[in-house]
Amino acid sequence: MLRRLYSVPVQHLTKSVRSQFTSAQTIDVESLVPNEYEAPCMKTPVPGPRSKALCADLDDVNANIGHVHFFVNYEASRGNYIVDADGNVLLDLFTQISSVPLGYNHPNLIQVMMDPNNMASLVNRPAFGNFPSTDWPETVRNALISVAPPGMRYVQPMMCGACSNEHGYKAIFMAYQRNKRGGLPPTQEEMDSSVHNMLPGSPKLSLLSFTNAFHGRTTACLSNTHTKWFHKLDFPTFDWPCAPFPKLRYPLEEFQRENDAEEDRCLEQVQDLMEKAEKKGEPVAGIVVEPIQAEGGDNHASGRFFRELQKIAKKNGAALMIDEVQTGCGPTGKFWAHEHWDLPQPPDVVCFSKKMQTGGFYFTEEMKPTSADSYRIFNTWMGDPTKLLLLREVINVIKSQNLLENVVVAGEHLQGGLSGLQRAHPNKLENCRGLGTFVAIDLRNGKMRDEVVKSLRNEGFIVGACGERSIRFRPALVCQKHHISMFLDQFEKEILSLP
Amino acid sequence: MLRRLYSVPVQHLTKSVRSQFTSAQTIDVESLVPNEYEAPCMKTPVPGPRSKALCADLDDVNANIGHVHFFVNYEASRGNYIVDADGNVLLDLFTQISSVPLGYNHPNLIQVMMDPNNMASLVNRPAFGNFPSTDWPETVRNALISVAPPGMRYVQPMMCGACSNEHGYKAIFMAYQRNKRGGLPPTQEEMDSSVHNMLPGSPKLSLLSFTNAFHGRTTACLSNTHTKWFHKLDFPTFDWPCAPFPKLRYPLEEFQRENDAEEDRCLEQVQDLMEKAEKKGEPVAGIVVEPIQAEGGDNHASGRFFRELQKIAKKNGAALMIDEVQTGCGPTGKFWAHEHWDLPQPPDVVCFSKKMQTGGFYFTEEMKPTSADSYRIFNTWMGDPTKLLLLREVINVIKSQNLLENVVVAGEHLQGGLSGLQRAHPNKLENCRGLGTFVAIDLRNGKMRDEVVKSLRNEGFIVGACGERSIRFRPALVCQKHHISMFLDQFEKEILSLP
Repeated sequence: MLRRLYSVPVQHLTKSVRSQFTSAQTIDVESLVPNEYEAPCMKTPVPGPRSKALCADLDDVNANIGHVHFFVNYEASRGNYIVDADGNVLLDLFTQISSVPLGYNHPNLIQVMMDPNNMASLVNRPAFGNFPSTDWPETVRNALISVAPPGMRYVQPMMCGACSNEHGYKAIFMAYQRNKRGGLPPTQEEMDSSVHNMLPGSPKLSLLSFTNAFHGRTTACLSNTHTKWFHKLDFPTFDWPCAPFPKLRYPLEEFQRENDAEEDRCLEQVQDLMEKAEKKGEPVAGIVVEPIQAEGGDNHASGRFFRELQKIAKKNGAALMIDEVQTGCGPTGKFWAHEHWDLPQPPDVVCFSKKMQTGGFYFTEEMKPTSADSYRIFNTWMGDPTKLLLLREVINVIKSQNLLENVVVAGEHLQGGLSGLQRAHPNKLENCRGLGTFVAIDLRNGKMRDEVVKSLRNEGFIVGACGERSIRFRPALVCQKHHISMFLDQFEKEILSLP
Repeated sequence: MLRRLYSVPVQHLTKSVRSQFTSAQTIDVESLVPNEYEAPCMKTPVPGPRSKALCADLDDVNANIGHVHFFVNYEASRGNYIVDADGNVLLDLFTQISSVPLGYNHPNLIQVMMDPNNMASLVNRPAFGNFPSTDWPETVRNALISVAPPGMRYVQPMMCGACSNEHGYKAIFMAYQRNKRGGLPPTQEEMDSSVHNMLPGSPKLSLLSFTNAFHGRTTACLSNTHTKWFHKLDFPTFDWPCAPFPKLRYPLEEFQRENDAEEDRCLEQVQDLMEKAEKKGEPVAGIVVEPIQAEGGDNHASGRFFRELQKIAKKNGAALMIDEVQTGCGPTGKFWAHEHWDLPQPPDVVCFSKKMQTGGFYFTEEMKPTSADSYRIFNTWMGDPTKLLLLREVINVIKSQNLLENVVVAGEHLQGGLSGLQRAHPNKLENCRGLGTFVAIDLRNGKMRDEVVKSLRNEGFIVGACGERSIRFRPALVCQKHHISMFLDQFEKEILSLP
């Protein structure tokens, strides 16, 4: 069947096109992705015997693959459903660590990859910094600039989330030093000493981050990451300031006074740490923060908190960088999570990756390098044209199918269902929280959480874990109420069976 | 014409298939890529008016693009010839900073991207660490393990060169600390302190690199990079030890005694710096080195130097990591440049990217993480399946067309021609050097070099610059004698016209 999907030109998603695909199963609700499965269908526990055999095979050449969950038949996966190596069909509410915007094998994306006009991008990997393709400016506009955060008009594509953050950091350091020089060019001493990692060219500057933050696995990103030991152990890092991220009580609206106080406590610490860093001679050039701490446990803060954070940054001459690698591209119901905050001015840098298919960062006029700065934010590939082609179509589908609205509707259904279960089982579930379908809920402890995640998987539902005891939901933007209803039914059974 | 190339299934490269493609021009010599242009063909200076207009367009959304050389019509580019936005046809001896193994629009790569069996890889971007595809182990074997450096049997795919180095470094740090613990698990104190970037969990460890080294643009890579100020200025880095890289005299065989002495001087410094680092409490966990320093000026060292370097690393309990990002995948006439050295044991880590299409690193049994180390070398994507599919076919073509042998033949022709010009113009050219087609030659000074590079481009020949005054050649593996003869003819004219 799917082979046919790959060989028939698929037009824009309409009913008439959808009827080209015959399904063995019928779907009650009109699906946003044609030819989805009707429901999970399990044949073996997960990982099944074939996944286990493949795991041994991969371990022989890749080593250290305890992190593999199971092997996937991507050809057979469709929409919100992932099919594993053993033929199990699972509803995927985690979507490759939140990286699949339109579900699996979306026909529009297949069409993009089959379009002969795009073949040159598929087989010729350019060094975009030196030799961009003639269609690159237009593709950057259509794919990236068309969804630029409000007030931001520049973008630098990159390869992955960590690279995006690393280069976003560099843009911040450059802007900080540029301001310090007051328009003068760097001195010869600065240029020469930089090559030897010495002052003044390689300055003592820092970036402030937060407890439980996760920003990536390369060295500067790791220096700002404060989640789990296995992300960090044995790696040299910078001793940069780390402020407490607010620990709020949920539901937020019921604890506003306590939460405001907690946020104020954290904001005071931010200001205090910035002053200390200045005195120590390692001033804070930028504050780096996730809109919702994801790996760290789906920790929320209010719009007020981020507005105040921006004020502190500006007061201290530091940039504010929002790491939207996991929150960007729609899962909170707005394209960018920071759009929920009503910031009076845009952030200075916004990084992205995952659902966006490509890494990169947006930046403001103030962050714009000068004409003397060419080759300073640079590497060989600076992105990948095939990913921008996919992103362009992802954005088309998000707009034409009103997927942000779908996220809001599906998210309300998910949060409503989970809140109901939490009210019914207050000793087993707590802290249901979320924006759109970017949702999490806490079990009593990590062991119980892990058991529920595993049991759900064996029943055909993939969810993620984060923090100490949270389950996180990261469905595709095409996840609908009927998918969530199936999950909630199963989740209730799991909760009922807990001691 | 090219549209036809993209829509007709192309079989393995044979004469009968090549005759499917009618060329308006005839090629005297049998080309390794069908339907190549016959020679450069220039209509405007480069960048031409259309490139300039596109540059203004891109600058409006990307900013800071002084590094753009010209815009490329990738669809019209073929084999060794790149076609720019203004319709100029140029012989490309730089190939996207050494990143194009088979030239442009190679029919075998087009076929891979058109194969419906590969469509699932094109439209479904997996988080390989958690959810690998069923064909992943086999693809990793066929694409990466089939060309593993001698004695190395494990590989970790990554996204780009810098990420590959960063994670290779992490593997080295982990192995170093694992050895230090003597088989014991990390202590609770180590685990807890690592999250806060504190000792002992975030240890004071260093990596030793060399003057003029280039290892990438992320923070740890930058700490090991010592090329030009604009790669480094304003960015905080680690103050890690940097040893002198040998400054050899060329041709190497004529100056063996002087060069041996220079290498010994550098090796002594390495040992000395490692002792100093140990005393300072920031021991060297690994030595990181390029087989031929590329960005730094195409600086060579002998096999003896690298064998001695390996001895020093072993004696001091440090790993030896070879950064083959630019040298790997054949341009030196062997698949890996370090195969020229007759190392008694394999290096501990070998990193790659560029021509390999994907980033990643090979590692030895000693570097292999334990089962307790899962999720420590990890990120969301850990490579890209589409790039491994391309690499698999690149390797097929390299083998079936004996491209390493072609590189040796073409390289002898290039080096022979340049040496002849150098002998004829000793006051203008010096230091011709190279392995295979990985070749460089020096002009009298940087200004003259820049002028020659620019003039060559306007005549239809792309070469690269590196170091202070070098021209570097990085042709595709399908570059042949007849291409090089055309270049040499033009190069002689340029040299003759120099004052």
